[in-house]
Amino acid sequence: MPSAIQTLTVDLGPRSYEILIGASILDQIGQRMKSCVRGQRVAVVSNTTVAPLHLHPVQTSLEEAGFFVTPIILPDGEIHKNWNTLQQIFDHLIANRFERADPLLALGGGVIGDMTGFAAACHLRGVPFVQIPTTLLAQVDASVGGKTGINHPLGKNLIGAFYQPSLVMIDIDTLTTLPLRERLAGFAEVIKYGILWDRELFMLLEERLGEILAGNAELLIQLLHRCCAIKAAIVTMDEREEGKRALLNLGHTFGHAIESLTGYDRWLHGEAVAAGMVTAAHLATRIGLCPPEEAARMHALIQRCGLPTQLPNFPVDHYLEAMTHDKKVSGGRIRFILPERIGHTIVRSDLSTQLLRATLEANMEPSAQPTTKGYS
Amino acid sequence: MPSAIQTLTVDLGPRSYEILIGASILDQIGQRMKSCVRGQRVAVVSNTTVAPLHLHPVQTSLEEAGFFVTPIILPDGEIHKNWNTLQQIFDHLIANRFERADPLLALGGGVIGDMTGFAAACHLRGVPFVQIPTTLLAQVDASVGGKTGINHPLGKNLIGAFYQPSLVMIDIDTLTTLPLRERLAGFAEVIKYGILWDRELFMLLEERLGEILAGNAELLIQLLHRCCAIKAAIVTMDEREEGKRALLNLGHTFGHAIESLTGYDRWLHGEAVAAGMVTAAHLATRIGLCPPEEAARMHALIQRCGLPTQLPNFPVDHYLEAMTHDKKVSGGRIRFILPERIGHTIVRSDLSTQLLRATLEANMEPSAQPTTKGYS
Repeated sequence: MPSAIQTLTVDLGPRSYEILIGASILDQIGQRMKSCVRGQRVAVVSNTTVAPLHLHPVQTSLEEAGFFVTPIILPDGEIHKNWNTLQQIFDHLIANRFERADPLLALGGGVIGDMTGFAAACHLRGVPFVQIPTTLLAQVDASVGGKTGINHPLGKNLIGAFYQPSLVMIDIDTLTTLPLRERLAGFAEVIKYGILWDRELFMLLEERLGEILAGNAELLIQLLHRCCAIKAAIVTMDEREEGKRALLNLGHTFGHAIESLTGYDRWLHGEAVAAGMVTAAHLATRIGLCPPEEAARMHALIQRCGLPTQLPNFPVDHYLEAMTHDKKVSGGRIRFILPERIGHTIVRSDLSTQLLRATLEANMEPSAQPTTKGYS
Repeated sequence: MPSAIQTLTVDLGPRSYEILIGASILDQIGQRMKSCVRGQRVAVVSNTTVAPLHLHPVQTSLEEAGFFVTPIILPDGEIHKNWNTLQQIFDHLIANRFERADPLLALGGGVIGDMTGFAAACHLRGVPFVQIPTTLLAQVDASVGGKTGINHPLGKNLIGAFYQPSLVMIDIDTLTTLPLRERLAGFAEVIKYGILWDRELFMLLEERLGEILAGNAELLIQLLHRCCAIKAAIVTMDEREEGKRALLNLGHTFGHAIESLTGYDRWLHGEAVAAGMVTAAHLATRIGLCPPEEAARMHALIQRCGLPTQLPNFPVDHYLEAMTHDKKVSGGRIRFILPERIGHTIVRSDLSTQLLRATLEANMEPSAQPTTKGYS
């Protein structure tokens, strides 16, 4: 039986939109979209993994609401988050004469969402964009904030746009079809909100992690609503990432370096963020910013989720090199988001290379070969 | 001796910027940029034709003002306005670690401006963008409005973004190095502003065309200021092209079809717009909207500038096909901007295919082979 739908409004003036959160609600997408987009044709962008699982109810609901639906099914994986794949979307839209009012609907995880959003931002200089994120990571992160983009061989998400969706629908049922490894990786971002902003959320995770991982629907909807609300509050304060929004990058400076060094295909984003957050906590402890017992609680919760806590083994210089390519670099200095305690983080860009080296070395896996993190 | 600089503010709230118009002012770019951008490094994007003529004073001025300058020199021509060329800009910026505050400066015509603007819109999800348009067309058209983008094999400017510059500098001295054919093509857009908005401007052109074409600096600066002010007024009313701004596309529905059918390399944009405006006037006369004597004056002024007034010879079906790929298509219907009289235009999207066929046939060159329009 479908549960009640929770609604959250992301308030960005003329670019405001709603996030709908619930269970078994995919069959409502058609009616919901009718009220917020004008176009009559919808391009549903998905991938070869997600489409067989969730395209049918979405397409049926859209068609019943009177939309003409064209699916665009892309290959699955971060490795395809590039211009060539994006080009497939443009070719399809242009060959099928999609017009300015016709929306793109992203049905999938963060990669599908980021690429579809960027395609929507650029096609005819901007067409409407609707998101149905199907991974926990995409639901708590990519569904709020309007960051879209693709990777460049030298770094992640270096090419993209800030572009807001017209509507986001989160159906927690999609999580049941997610491989365990991906579901756990998503919890890295949930924990992130606890560390950076919300001590209560962190404690809820500490206390009820078992039930949450077992899939308690009510708790999951509550968590998703809370994470999205935190991100919405921060994004509303700082739509174009000039201040507060930087805090959301907790764990990402190290995390992006891991993903870049491992070629984007061995570590999941959430896994990289998990090891990145533990490393950031180490760094914060090392400079006397964060009490060791607080850092230990962060480490413990991340470990309980089965997430990695150490960096894969690469030469320290490779890490430093990868981190200077990050978008968060300013004035040539790497910017770090560091926890002061659970629920409060700050930005620091005055850290010495020596200190970074020591932190990287201290929190690195001993093995010479980077391994695949395999849970599934 | 440098003349006084005319300044025009394009009022778009937080995205407002200034257009500086004058003669021999390139050596002021460094100081002017210091006051509106924070970054210390500037990527000057130009092409193999413009760079040898104008890069030196621009680079010197920037370096004297304390900027670190990297030129990115692209191949010249509309045929290169594609992803591959754009990729060269991204590769360069990323390899050289350009940061979010570091601006891109477009030094060239419309192609360079559109590509550089789009690169600035997408690099790290948006970096500052400064324009020095060096063709008449780019000065009166591309320098106001924030339209950026690249072509797709199936149509012009289909992929892009609305992205505003931080500063525009127009130096009419750059026009003296422009081939005659390109200078004349630019007048198509000047005439366009007269037809669509400003009867007085049209009459000034009719009366003093000789002096203007001979390069009278005072008259040129006056014309440029007037065209930019008209465009700024329209764009301010309608930044994202949802209403009034459509009027700026006078001549462009036919014009884009010409460019698409001739593969973007035989007709200059302004030439295509010129023939497109005459065809639009024919169409307006045919439905009783525009008095024949007004249409005749438009035709005559365009002809006096040495611009084409007839469409190149292609099957009518090819024109219809090309026009339905245009961004201006709405609800499957082609949208036309039609003059009611000199100084006033309207939008119509209710015209029959039969009427279009008749208009296309009546205003087409007799020759079976499309020719290159050659003035230079």
